[in-house]
Amino acid sequence: MSAPTATKIGLNTSLPSIRRIHSIIRDKNEVEIKLLTGDQLRGKISWIDDQCICLDTSGHKVVIWQHAIAFIK
Amino acid sequence: MSAPTATKIGLNTSLPSIRRIHSIIRDKNEVEIKLLTGDQLRGKISWIDDQCICLDTSGHKVVIWQHAIAFIK
Amino acid sequence: MSAPTATKIGLNTSLPSIRRIHSIIRDKNEVEIKLLTGDQLRGKISWIDDQCICLDTSGHKVVIWQHAIAFIK
Amino acid sequence: MSAPTATKIGLNTSLPSIRRIHSIIRDKNEVEIKLLTGDQLRGKISWIDDQCICLDTSGHKVVIWQHAIAFIK
Amino acid sequence: MSAPTATKIGLNTSLPSIRRIHSIIRDKNEVEIKLLTGDQLRGKISWIDDQCICLDTSGHKVVIWQHAIAFIK
Amino acid sequence: MSAPTATKIGLNTSLPSIRRIHSIIRDKNEVEIKLLTGDQLRGKISWIDDQCICLDTSGHKVVIWQHAIAFIK
Repeated sequence: MSAPTATKIGLNTSLPSIRRIHSIIRDKNEVEIKLLTGDQLRGKISWIDDQCICLDTSGHKVVIWQHAIAFIK
Repeated sequence: MSAPTATKIGLNTSLPSIRRIHSIIRDKNEVEIKLLTGDQLRGKISWIDDQCICLDTSGHKVVIWQHAIAFIK
Repeated sequence: MSAPTATKIGLNTSLPSIRRIHSIIRDKNEVEIKLLTGDQLRGKISWIDDQCICLDTSGHKVVIWQHAIAFIK
Repeated sequence: MSAPTATKIGLNTSLPSIRRIHSIIRDKNEVEIKLLTGDQLRGKISWIDDQCICLDTSGHKVVIWQHAIAFIK
Repeated sequence: MSAPTATKIGLNTSLPSIRRIHSIIRDKNEVEIKLLTGDQLRGKISWIDDQCICLDTSGHKVVIWQHAIAFIK
Repeated sequence: MSAPTATKIGLNTSLPSIRRIHSIIRDKNEVEIKLLTGDQLRGKISWIDDQCICLDTSGHKVVIWQHAIAFIK
């Protein structure tokens, strides 16, 4: 599955939340994402767009809908 | 039940998330979709529109509302 | 309780998801609707509008808010 | 607590779902409302607006946010 | 923590739901607010705006996001 | 991970809820944030934008999506 590169399309990059996510992508920080399902996923963020965040979890690309995210740490 | 063919109506096809889903449809990859109900469905995506994703699960067509999706992997 | 007839008001009928639901209504197919509450309802769809879907479950008309729907199969 | 009378402000009264609710109000039908919390409330609907539905449950007025409604039957 | 006074900014005060909340604020009625988390909070409403409701629960000010409210009674 | 400073971009600062959050940020009050997942986080708010709230929990920066917040107290 070919991965789209980090993209900033349609995002308001002046928002602190978007800037924070972009700095996490740039620095290749590992993060934990807690979902409304109770799932907690761990990995590196590949990209974010208006709708989703793509998390790279030990080789698996997981496309997470933002409406399902509780928090990132 | 006659199936609509893969359609891209009203979608912003420049978004990484939409491009990712379209490449999954094109390559006929099998995916797992985790829902906010906790259900995990497995199958091939037939189409996506603004509102729903259609998953083909061993012959059954399941129309999933996007607001209910947590992630796809 | 008098039932409104199948109506397509305000719906984008070119969307695959709407066309699918309309074909289910037209063909009087029985479907299962899984809700975010975990409930699974079974019946025939009478109508859909922007906000709700009406399901006829052995004589009872149930008006389901679309935001509560996980999937239809 | 003084009750506002049945009002149709800002609602698209041509939608089947709104017409259905208005006929329930007019006919003073008793309904069951299932919520996303799992609660099931029983009573007569006093009014609906864009945001809420007011349910009269044996004398208690309950203002229900529509985003929390799964279905009405 | 200094409390903002009851404010009606940006609210459509002709909606029955908003008028009902404003009458609860004005009459200093005690209410119960049931949340989508299952929590049930009891207190007096200090203010409402487009996004939140502030509940005064025996001295504690709780800012509740409206999207998390199931019902008020 | 470099932290963005408290920012008010794109927020309607006349809303009581936003003014309340800004006063919490300014006074460096410790708060509890209850989420729709049931999690209760404790810390100081660093910033808020249209989409998220950043909570500083004993050194860890947690970016919380506002749609996942039930209440702050």
